[in-house]
Amino acid sequence: MAELFFKALTIKKARSVLSGYLKEFRSPVKVPLLESLNRRLACAVTAVEDIPGFGRSTVDGYAVRARDTYGASEGLPSYLEVYGEVLMGRAPDREVGAGQAWYIATGGMLPRGADAVVMVEYTEELDGSTIGITRPVAPGENVIQKGEDISSGEVALPAGHRIRPQDLGMLSSVGVDTVEVASRVKVGIISTGDELVCPGDKPGPGQVRDINSFTLHGAVEACGGIPYLYGVIPDNFARLKKILEQALDENDLVLLSGGSSVGVRDVTLRVIEAMGKPGVLFHGISVKPGKPTIGAVVKGKPVFGLPGHPVSTLIIFDILVAPLVRDGGYPADEEESLTAFPLLALMTRNLRSAAGREDFIRVKLYRRDGQVYAEPVLGKSGLITTMVRADGIARIPPGKEGVEAGETVEVKLF
Amino acid sequence: MAELFFKALTIKKARSVLSGYLKEFRSPVKVPLLESLNRRLACAVTAVEDIPGFGRSTVDGYAVRARDTYGASEGLPSYLEVYGEVLMGRAPDREVGAGQAWYIATGGMLPRGADAVVMVEYTEELDGSTIGITRPVAPGENVIQKGEDISSGEVALPAGHRIRPQDLGMLSSVGVDTVEVASRVKVGIISTGDELVCPGDKPGPGQVRDINSFTLHGAVEACGGIPYLYGVIPDNFARLKKILEQALDENDLVLLSGGSSVGVRDVTLRVIEAMGKPGVLFHGISVKPGKPTIGAVVKGKPVFGLPGHPVSTLIIFDILVAPLVRDGGYPADEEESLTAFPLLALMTRNLRSAAGREDFIRVKLYRRDGQVYAEPVLGKSGLITTMVRADGIARIPPGKEGVEAGETVEVKLF
Repeated sequence: MAELFFKALTIKKARSVLSGYLKEFRSPVKVPLLESLNRRLACAVTAVEDIPGFGRSTVDGYAVRARDTYGASEGLPSYLEVYGEVLMGRAPDREVGAGQAWYIATGGMLPRGADAVVMVEYTEELDGSTIGITRPVAPGENVIQKGEDISSGEVALPAGHRIRPQDLGMLSSVGVDTVEVASRVKVGIISTGDELVCPGDKPGPGQVRDINSFTLHGAVEACGGIPYLYGVIPDNFARLKKILEQALDENDLVLLSGGSSVGVRDVTLRVIEAMGKPGVLFHGISVKPGKPTIGAVVKGKPVFGLPGHPVSTLIIFDILVAPLVRDGGYPADEEESLTAFPLLALMTRNLRSAAGREDFIRVKLYRRDGQVYAEPVLGKSGLITTMVRADGIARIPPGKEGVEAGETVEVKLF
Repeated sequence: MAELFFKALTIKKARSVLSGYLKEFRSPVKVPLLESLNRRLACAVTAVEDIPGFGRSTVDGYAVRARDTYGASEGLPSYLEVYGEVLMGRAPDREVGAGQAWYIATGGMLPRGADAVVMVEYTEELDGSTIGITRPVAPGENVIQKGEDISSGEVALPAGHRIRPQDLGMLSSVGVDTVEVASRVKVGIISTGDELVCPGDKPGPGQVRDINSFTLHGAVEACGGIPYLYGVIPDNFARLKKILEQALDENDLVLLSGGSSVGVRDVTLRVIEAMGKPGVLFHGISVKPGKPTIGAVVKGKPVFGLPGHPVSTLIIFDILVAPLVRDGGYPADEEESLTAFPLLALMTRNLRSAAGREDFIRVKLYRRDGQVYAEPVLGKSGLITTMVRADGIARIPPGKEGVEAGETVEVKLF
């Protein structure tokens, strides 16, 4: 058992202790481009050609030599000879000479000789072969240059990037039709507790239905992992050890939840310790809610003993588990601040915290007079409905002893 | 063709014109609870029992009558007889009498007679059958009351609610194992343009690879719809009409993209008009980028002609299509402000807009000194990489003629 065992760690320290023992548990897999949404790139994608491969018009109009339009106005148009029309998807076969114009539609290939496009709105047709230009264009105007979107050799997307709809389009533009992404993380979920029954069953006296298997299943899916439920296991060393062994064999990461009572935590701890090195790395983190969290690594795979209260379980999942499922590791602090807690809101009440402890507050959000306000949803962390009523989670950083009404807090949105 | 045809509408007006002709195109479907993440509830869920069904301890400690602890202190503990232990998942078989205490773990059922729980930290064991209480508890302390999480008859979740991980847990707690959700919206996607080739193909002179099929596929998936690609169709009335008929038969909603040139828009317009009533409802909205958008309803199904530029296409999708795919309709303005554009950020530059037009600005976000800043990503709307480099989209409402550096804008995050 590691030395850190009985000391409550900060989140930062807990993450760094875990990181020290983790191996990469994801592997690169090739998937068709259209199946890659929200996946993480396993390696950077570099463009191997210029996009676009040629100058293109961004408007409907006439491809011209810009200098032929200088000085043009409505009172005194420049007159040009209409010399041809650019067909979509074809290369124009001739050059645009001085005093000439080619009709070109949006997306058409700029003919050689031309360096700008005059919008059709600023032209007037005189006869079938002559137009008047009523407003001058500068060289490059209304044109996307060769390589302007992305140029050959440029890194189109870095390794680890989450693929969004626009990234699919960008990848398709550079000719990528399969991408190498990180494999989805398989997460085993074990609920413990003699008092738990499945949702389909009617609880007897003293019994309640299992909540955490379901919230964790959803939370794992929401960050791109593949959840496997192992059901409700009674608080029994042999039973729990057997199922944990199976879950570790079948998954990249295992979550044990429930068992927030001292006795059950002891069983969970003893079972994890019996599985192999390094075993339990910490038991207890300086966070509210969620203090009695167990962090362990067995055979290079992370194992978490999550607190039993449903609110605490989801919050600890978010802090310690979600980054591993999503990215295979923890982000840098600065980065996380903007990506995980992007919203800044004004807290509507005074809230106390303890110095050195990080607090996570369920909040409802509303806007008034160009400000976002965060109203705490109060209630015990055993009440799942407090999470249902909340729109997000505000955090009070470990350096602060609370927040005052009107103070700015960082908020994560659900 | 409707009278509104040539007038550029505000987004609000465009939405209301469309809404006037739309029928509900989703139907309720039953799915297992675990498959319902991110789906929308087809009807409200009402709790049919109290959760929890009995008083439960929130800590490890002793169930007592609170009044037996009044006045207790470390110097002068209250001494109570340890009368029993609550077994998890069982109803205690006897009552807690005056001067008595039962050992109880977190989640255990409060025995009759007891009205509070003393945390084990505030007790001292004297011998096997007596404990000293060193701090008093109030009635109800460390107890979740019967029905405190949710009570019988209460609406647990309203119709239309998007199911999040915590909602799965709450639904499981009230015994729901299948839920009725709105069917996923099927979206047909047709790219038009003689210049387009598929990503696997090498573009010839004047050709580029199709981008919009891929961004739209991802965008539809991201809001819970089912995308079907119909490939790249040449700008030809008969071909386009045939494929649009098929797509309308097979989907709830159809997107035509590309064809931002006047000639191609004409084909798209004529094809939609040939399909049936009411046909095209507007052509052009007061928004930048994305003005040349076509909105239509055919046989009760929405059909959109999206502008060809990839940035415009994604932005118009977000404004006009995403709410239909996600929710089957458009949200109220106030609601949308906080849900769709939740972040408030300070713009770093002056940007001009036109009064009456709504502008959407690609932005990169960063934090400094407790403020979020939005830095515009400039570039033509034909450049997909500008969307790739951006973290989100800021909006300049139609009532404003621009924003100044330092002014607050609403931002949607990618």
